[in-house]
Amino acid sequence: MNKNKLRIIPIGGLGEIGKNMLAIEYGNDIIVIDAGLMFPHEDMPGVDIVIPDISYLVKKKDKVRGIVITHGHEDHIGALPYILPQLDVPIYASKLTRDLIAVKLKERRNLSKARLKMINPGTSFNLGVFNIEPFSVCHSIPDAVGLMINTPLGLVVHSGDFKIDYTPVDGKGTDLSRLAQVCAKGTLLLLADSTYAELPGYTPSESVVGETLNRIIGAAKGRVLIATFSSLVSRIQQILDAAVAYKRHVFIVGRSMKDIVRMALENGYLSVPNGVILQPEDLHRFPNNQVVILMTGSQGEPTSALVRVANQDNGQIRIVPGDTVIMSASPIPGNESLVNRTMDNLFRQGADVIYSKLAQVHVHGHASQEELKLLLTLVKPKYFVPVHGEYRHLCIHSKLAKSVGVQENNIFIMENGDILDIDSEQGRVTGRIPSDNIYVDGLVMGNYANVILRDRKLLSRDGIVVVTVAIDRSSGKVIGKPDILSRGFVDTEEGKMIIEQGRALVATALTHRDNHPVDRSLINIKIKDTLARFFYEQTKRRPMILTTTLEV
Amino acid sequence: MNKNKLRIIPIGGLGEIGKNMLAIEYGNDIIVIDAGLMFPHEDMPGVDIVIPDISYLVKKKDKVRGIVITHGHEDHIGALPYILPQLDVPIYASKLTRDLIAVKLKERRNLSKARLKMINPGTSFNLGVFNIEPFSVCHSIPDAVGLMINTPLGLVVHSGDFKIDYTPVDGKGTDLSRLAQVCAKGTLLLLADSTYAELPGYTPSESVVGETLNRIIGAAKGRVLIATFSSLVSRIQQILDAAVAYKRHVFIVGRSMKDIVRMALENGYLSVPNGVILQPEDLHRFPNNQVVILMTGSQGEPTSALVRVANQDNGQIRIVPGDTVIMSASPIPGNESLVNRTMDNLFRQGADVIYSKLAQVHVHGHASQEELKLLLTLVKPKYFVPVHGEYRHLCIHSKLAKSVGVQENNIFIMENGDILDIDSEQGRVTGRIPSDNIYVDGLVMGNYANVILRDRKLLSRDGIVVVTVAIDRSSGKVIGKPDILSRGFVDTEEGKMIIEQGRALVATALTHRDNHPVDRSLINIKIKDTLARFFYEQTKRRPMILTTTLEV
Repeated sequence: MNKNKLRIIPIGGLGEIGKNMLAIEYGNDIIVIDAGLMFPHEDMPGVDIVIPDISYLVKKKDKVRGIVITHGHEDHIGALPYILPQLDVPIYASKLTRDLIAVKLKERRNLSKARLKMINPGTSFNLGVFNIEPFSVCHSIPDAVGLMINTPLGLVVHSGDFKIDYTPVDGKGTDLSRLAQVCAKGTLLLLADSTYAELPGYTPSESVVGETLNRIIGAAKGRVLIATFSSLVSRIQQILDAAVAYKRHVFIVGRSMKDIVRMALENGYLSVPNGVILQPEDLHRFPNNQVVILMTGSQGEPTSALVRVANQDNGQIRIVPGDTVIMSASPIPGNESLVNRTMDNLFRQGADVIYSKLAQVHVHGHASQEELKLLLTLVKPKYFVPVHGEYRHLCIHSKLAKSVGVQENNIFIMENGDILDIDSEQGRVTGRIPSDNIYVDGLVMGNYANVILRDRKLLSRDGIVVVTVAIDRSSGKVIGKPDILSRGFVDTEEGKMIIEQGRALVATALTHRDNHPVDRSLINIKIKDTLARFFYEQTKRRPMILTTTLEV
Repeated sequence: MNKNKLRIIPIGGLGEIGKNMLAIEYGNDIIVIDAGLMFPHEDMPGVDIVIPDISYLVKKKDKVRGIVITHGHEDHIGALPYILPQLDVPIYASKLTRDLIAVKLKERRNLSKARLKMINPGTSFNLGVFNIEPFSVCHSIPDAVGLMINTPLGLVVHSGDFKIDYTPVDGKGTDLSRLAQVCAKGTLLLLADSTYAELPGYTPSESVVGETLNRIIGAAKGRVLIATFSSLVSRIQQILDAAVAYKRHVFIVGRSMKDIVRMALENGYLSVPNGVILQPEDLHRFPNNQVVILMTGSQGEPTSALVRVANQDNGQIRIVPGDTVIMSASPIPGNESLVNRTMDNLFRQGADVIYSKLAQVHVHGHASQEELKLLLTLVKPKYFVPVHGEYRHLCIHSKLAKSVGVQENNIFIMENGDILDIDSEQGRVTGRIPSDNIYVDGLVMGNYANVILRDRKLLSRDGIVVVTVAIDRSSGKVIGKPDILSRGFVDTEEGKMIIEQGRALVATALTHRDNHPVDRSLINIKIKDTLARFFYEQTKRRPMILTTTLEV
């Protein structure tokens, strides 16, 4: 590769929400930013998670100097356990992010030797030819950073996931001042978060939620149950503050919420007077109007504390009329029906459920249009690549960049796997690397993942019919009647008759061939044709038909 | 049933969006309001549509005087073709609604004798003991009505689907004046639309969209493609008006849109100067800035015109850079990812796509909170039953009713199948009728629908493994090696090895039994246990395992 070219390759996170990963390459050095997972869509049945394809990095692994992580959300760190076995390079992350990665890697014992390095906003470090200075950004998890990366061709800024909050609850805003200073003379390239580029205006400050929580908790006559993300530490702080303000005790339910609160208290991310947080066992000692219960389940996750409560399946907590439940989160796209079902069940048991459509009990963690324009204005990039977002988000973000003065032909709307080469003259997309989804379903699924997923979708549409035929090995003749089993196809008495008729039809169809040597593939075709037509006529359904011929 | 009781039974549409149907019964008379379908959720794989369970009505069919339809949307008329064969009663509907039902029934020839009667706002009619006066309501389809139903116990008002629009495009607003007059002395019972009870404030007027369309079409330099619902006639009128204002011709693509525009023009629901609407064949005769293309596909429906265009699969229309596409609709819950994918594909081909998050190119057709309070205030009901909506919508609507003075114990949050009995003293829920979902998948699915759907979901999760074993009929011994087939489970070389190892394990497991008489159910259990454990160890997946033993 030409030494005077800076190469930018988004490996994941473009044209989709999740599995964020991007490579920056110059000469003999590659750095990687983030290594996230994506949660499966509804057209990926049975898939647990989706990770980026790192085959390009594996091929060049001697050049890869490290993976720099911008923050500790799953869509930025979740692929690490799957990637490190093939790409054993150091990981650079700020304190909380590092701690969260350490927990994740500890769960897989073979990764205990991973090299985790801590980075700090304002303190630059070198990776090969690159000098990197992290800067604080505000996001829905503490210790998030963006990156200012000095390259031989000039400064590259990566925003990470960010919003701008002038009154952040933890006091750590996006460091606009440092950014303005470093970028004063302009920047070669800006890579910026597009997740909420659709939204006009400004994203409200996290502290707005505090006001709402205070109002609701202050007015509540009974218990207040609050569900939020365990990583949304600022929100938890505001919940603790509101509880203290109204002389309520806080009970934390669920392992992940307990773990993170304990860790955040120990490390100074949270502060609360002694005696406010109590064990759920002590719940019965307090009247309902002195109780706040904090838990996960804001996304309707089936095993979460709130969903168990909603399903009357939690050992400690039953909803009683007079309870107020606050859903302090918005449903992530795809989770809407799970969340709605959970809320409906809570209402059914007499709770008053307050959610983001009814009151400002949540603000999101990404920049809206005016904030994106502010970033562009401060960074003054020559080249611009919108990252993190579905294709329309990237397009809309590009329009914003154009509106504040970035030249249209210096804006690159890229897709995963595209290679952008920038030299001292120009930037252009010069090729592609492999960038397919890698599916994890128990094991990492291989090249045939698409076949498997297609079959699963077919199976779920109209079910399956299995036909078994025995063939005499010596004579090659069909023995007896074929056997038919079905699942997910028909199941009434009428359905059983249809199956039985299908069986008779197959028997007849095969009898005609009695005097010829048997060709198994012909038998299969005959069975499938006969049954597909008959079943469709009878039921208007097209089950998958599988035949197995057994030679005996 | 006691003659002095008024019985209200929601058969569908409560706790869900869709399949609206409600029965009102007094003495020997039953009237039914609406007969809608519901589109399947993602946990109903392979299901085409869902309809209400009418077994209660069929049992009492001699009492059913008719079905009164409030408007022509599928969630209010879509179940008629499935219901009429069992419940052959007259159908009452306003003009457009009747015409839409007629088209639907004509497609099924056996229903050509259905008795379709036309009703008019302001003209009352009798059904048994009930006297019914329809009143105009504003909704996202013309000729929608609510119903004022005089019963021996007092006046019952059913809102139908409605919003309040003081500047309706077709000039037909919700008839608040007539409603106020008839309800002046108060009403026994109000049944009102809860679909958007979550939304504070007022739903904007349809005419707001006209302003946005004018602005966008006026500013567009190239073609403008607009997708909306074919039944949203007011929107189509505004699109035609904007096209005329900017001297553009309108080309209509797709059968359903063409059919409804033709019908609406013939019947005076739409008006447009001659020569504005042209055939798609003439598209090439006009420069891009004189063209508006109207089509369906706003929900990302795979076979719709817009989706074919987005997939470069439409014979007449290809996107060219400079095209503006307006999505003049919001995604119905569940359709978001289809809609997003469609928009992303349009952006990819260079279109500028404008959708409801970016500009007010759509307003919805249901009342928001202030409108619901206005209805409650004019109708002054003693009893209130929120209808049409998921459970939380019903709860929130009930709170609104309480806030404007309806007594809390006179508000009934009901579920499908609940029986509300009202006498001169009080109302109370006294029992239930059958109210399960009836699934249609080609055929109407029977009692085992839940088993079928459960199997389809299982099949889609980790696929299926089919094991075939031949048994000698006379000796009862297993013959040869078992055969194993799989779909949707594993498909790599490694996977094939796992299957082969499983086959060997089963063979060994069955050998142990060689000297005993064979018990087929024991064989099945043994095979399943052996394989389930082995496959889970190897793959962390749990495919459905089906065994078939063939006696030969």
